[in-house]
Amino acid sequence: MKKYDKLVTNAAGRIVPTIINGEEHIPFKGVGKHRPTGRRYGPKLASCADYPDDGNKEVESLKVALQKAGLKDGMTISTHHHFRNGDLIANQIFDIAHELGIKELRWYPSASFPCQEGLIKYLEDGTINRIEGSMNGPLGKFTSEGGMKGLSILRSHGGRYQAIQDGEVKIDIAVIAAPTADFFGNANGVNGDAACGLLGFALGDSQYAERVIVVTDNLVPFPCVPWQINGNYVDYVVKVDKVGLPERIISGTTEITKSPDRLLIAELTAEFCEKAGLIYDGFSYQAGAGGTALSIGNYFGDILRKNNWKARFIRAGSNQYPVELLEEGLVEYILDGQTFDLEGVRSMRENPNHLDTSPFTSYNYHSKGNFAQLVDIVVLGATEVDVNFNANVVTHSDGYLLHGIGGWQNCLAAKTTIMPIPLFRDRIPVIRDEVTTLCAPGEMIDVIVTERGIAINPLRQDLIEKTKGMGLPIKTIQELKEEAEAICGVPEKIELSDEIVSVIKWVDGTVIDSVRKVIL
Amino acid sequence: MKKYDKLVTNAAGRIVPTIINGEEHIPFKGVGKHRPTGRRYGPKLASCADYPDDGNKEVESLKVALQKAGLKDGMTISTHHHFRNGDLIANQIFDIAHELGIKELRWYPSASFPCQEGLIKYLEDGTINRIEGSMNGPLGKFTSEGGMKGLSILRSHGGRYQAIQDGEVKIDIAVIAAPTADFFGNANGVNGDAACGLLGFALGDSQYAERVIVVTDNLVPFPCVPWQINGNYVDYVVKVDKVGLPERIISGTTEITKSPDRLLIAELTAEFCEKAGLIYDGFSYQAGAGGTALSIGNYFGDILRKNNWKARFIRAGSNQYPVELLEEGLVEYILDGQTFDLEGVRSMRENPNHLDTSPFTSYNYHSKGNFAQLVDIVVLGATEVDVNFNANVVTHSDGYLLHGIGGWQNCLAAKTTIMPIPLFRDRIPVIRDEVTTLCAPGEMIDVIVTERGIAINPLRQDLIEKTKGMGLPIKTIQELKEEAEAICGVPEKIELSDEIVSVIKWVDGTVIDSVRKVIL
Repeated sequence: MKKYDKLVTNAAGRIVPTIINGEEHIPFKGVGKHRPTGRRYGPKLASCADYPDDGNKEVESLKVALQKAGLKDGMTISTHHHFRNGDLIANQIFDIAHELGIKELRWYPSASFPCQEGLIKYLEDGTINRIEGSMNGPLGKFTSEGGMKGLSILRSHGGRYQAIQDGEVKIDIAVIAAPTADFFGNANGVNGDAACGLLGFALGDSQYAERVIVVTDNLVPFPCVPWQINGNYVDYVVKVDKVGLPERIISGTTEITKSPDRLLIAELTAEFCEKAGLIYDGFSYQAGAGGTALSIGNYFGDILRKNNWKARFIRAGSNQYPVELLEEGLVEYILDGQTFDLEGVRSMRENPNHLDTSPFTSYNYHSKGNFAQLVDIVVLGATEVDVNFNANVVTHSDGYLLHGIGGWQNCLAAKTTIMPIPLFRDRIPVIRDEVTTLCAPGEMIDVIVTERGIAINPLRQDLIEKTKGMGLPIKTIQELKEEAEAICGVPEKIELSDEIVSVIKWVDGTVIDSVRKVIL
Repeated sequence: MKKYDKLVTNAAGRIVPTIINGEEHIPFKGVGKHRPTGRRYGPKLASCADYPDDGNKEVESLKVALQKAGLKDGMTISTHHHFRNGDLIANQIFDIAHELGIKELRWYPSASFPCQEGLIKYLEDGTINRIEGSMNGPLGKFTSEGGMKGLSILRSHGGRYQAIQDGEVKIDIAVIAAPTADFFGNANGVNGDAACGLLGFALGDSQYAERVIVVTDNLVPFPCVPWQINGNYVDYVVKVDKVGLPERIISGTTEITKSPDRLLIAELTAEFCEKAGLIYDGFSYQAGAGGTALSIGNYFGDILRKNNWKARFIRAGSNQYPVELLEEGLVEYILDGQTFDLEGVRSMRENPNHLDTSPFTSYNYHSKGNFAQLVDIVVLGATEVDVNFNANVVTHSDGYLLHGIGGWQNCLAAKTTIMPIPLFRDRIPVIRDEVTTLCAPGEMIDVIVTERGIAINPLRQDLIEKTKGMGLPIKTIQELKEEAEAICGVPEKIELSDEIVSVIKWVDGTVIDSVRKVIL
């Protein structure tokens, strides 16, 4: 089977394949232009008659569970990434598959991390055909260098749910690592030694996979409360000694930035939002877990405190900083999609106003609306932005695929999207003539904030008007690019192979861009 | 279209139609014998592109919402019954349909009550073709007398969810009366002036209907927390002055019985459970909201207190009595499917251990198990039981269809099913040679407790052994029947028409019996 075939130029002017791993995919048609025509996917109907009368679905090992689930060549196996770099289960699944001589699996993680670098050997020996899911670090590098047999597909968190729901990706076996579960399969992430907060990334997997295995190190008597995962969807439960390393859910970026430039960017972003009238009593925002974003959250807190206002909600990726705002009473709710530190986990467990959400509630584009569009301000990073406000979040300017999309594309549905980015990183300008990889069309991005000025997308005349004469360093994006190039020089255009190693899906399931193999 | 056609004798020996309202249905094959072969139903895929950017789905009236939802002849309209006899919305829906000249609707309520008696005129004039759903009181009487144009189908709560999930019943428009909601459509039953506890009976409707309308009298800013109903499934939101009369969710049966005979039955039931070793530290039970059942719950509480034990959970229909046990600490969790009084509502709102459940979690038979089978003891009523332990819960011995199935059939999956029933009601024996309507095969019913003795199903030799020599008045069911007949005389066999007016579904979607028209 060819990895890909039938290249076309999509509505964003990008060359993308329409046959990927032997299946047809639709090229990007423009924002809001593609309408799905099918029906929601339905896995085979189950019957209580085929499950234990006493509700006890425990089996003795992950290997036995995988065998009972019918693991065989070519299947699609899904996992979630709530443990981030502390995941212990994905490696075990493929060790077992390898031991059993299974080949050509599709791994469908909600994201992969450096802790799964060991799976490269299975990508090489054919145990795993390909990864469809965010790749952070080594697996991305391996993909960029052309090592993967199949073609990788990157989807946003919402796009991943949409692909499951629409039946584009049929999961044969979902393996859900759960910090707490009962023998019926009800499971949650808030309790137990390995508490990671929530299990929302596995929700779609539980709902739509043919077979669902819950793996836990904390088996409690029925009912496991809360049941973030419904046991009614679960086939087998496995008890292990250790299900994950919660201390490794903390990424290095979950500390407030100390860089003077980044602090300046954060301050400018908050000042912009305040002066543009985007912050008000009852407003809402989402900021990621990066150092700059966290700092912006703190500035937002100052503005709320000063005005005696409350934010209605923060959408998060939570960690200690949003939790502090919630506990201070500056925010009514945190609507949380993944916890980034143990304070986030604690708060979700203890505070009824710290709610777990899922890619279904928050991000699914093939839905009757989603939470992301209800957010006033979203603050997002980017590896590159171009003069048309197009943005890249997966590849570096050297072409290497080193990051996943996460919820980034989905968050762009917010009322105002702001990207606070440094003008250059390691003397490489971040604002380019054209992004290496197109992850979002420029019309979705409203404001770029750098340490040397703010560029507002001309589509947002309202923001341009509102911030006139406010003393903000408003510039055109072209001006910002030129300033960077005056300092760092004009970057050379990177040479990449024609060979495609990955494609990027837009939130509606269409293919927005291709990632090319790097030339070694 | 014929109301029904192609009669066959099913595995329970009952004559049932296999063509009902023009559609094929499967006759009952025996408990656990029917396996579904299809896939879970999928409604048409939606797209955020077709919903308001700002998430505001409010429209000005229920009429406008129904029109926008495309209300037309022959559609299936669903409602829930959490307000029980205090529902205000169902009548309005069909008033609007009538006003618009719409005909031949199928009404698919989770149950109907006397407050909806006014819909008889629409059943007569053809606005409504038929009701598929539990009928308590006048609508049942009307059906029994042959007034309904289509054939009514009665399903259990779990069977109703199963029928939706399996695509047997495709809901065109679900109308969900919600005590609290936001403009996006997130909704719950715990807050607001009309708080009714939960909205679990509408869960399947929200997930699978093509169009979903949320009607509320308490519109709160997004997010409405908790979101028992996900706005992501909702098309339109309507604000009304009053969405329901919560004081009428209390039925007349939610008081502890004062009848000496019933108290004796309750005491005997508890004594039986204790002596049979069914009550232990960590056990679980479900008892309905009838006076006898509530009294049994109190006796169970006494046994727990005496032994310094805790029940792990009560499955409920909650009201003040289970809530007292929870608050006293005699029970760890209430897993609640519907609140029967305002104390139940308060507790669900305030107590994180009082959890809302749904027919999906608790009762759906086409699922990978459900909660009902995890319950140690379930206590259920019946209108009739026969000498083979078959039971009837929908018709009286005069043939009138006056009750719905509710969760009754689903609860039979518990480890031990006990029916505490009086030996006779109004001098009519309750134990018969054959039940008028078969709602459950005898193999599902373990113990009959009457004021004059206890009959154990011979299939439960374990219970017979355990209770030997314990001083319990154990008799055969034949003996109990004869005692009743010695007092009341042998009841005359009731004459019913050959014409079928309703069918009863078993939990797996097969047809277990037919209800005949009464002869006036």
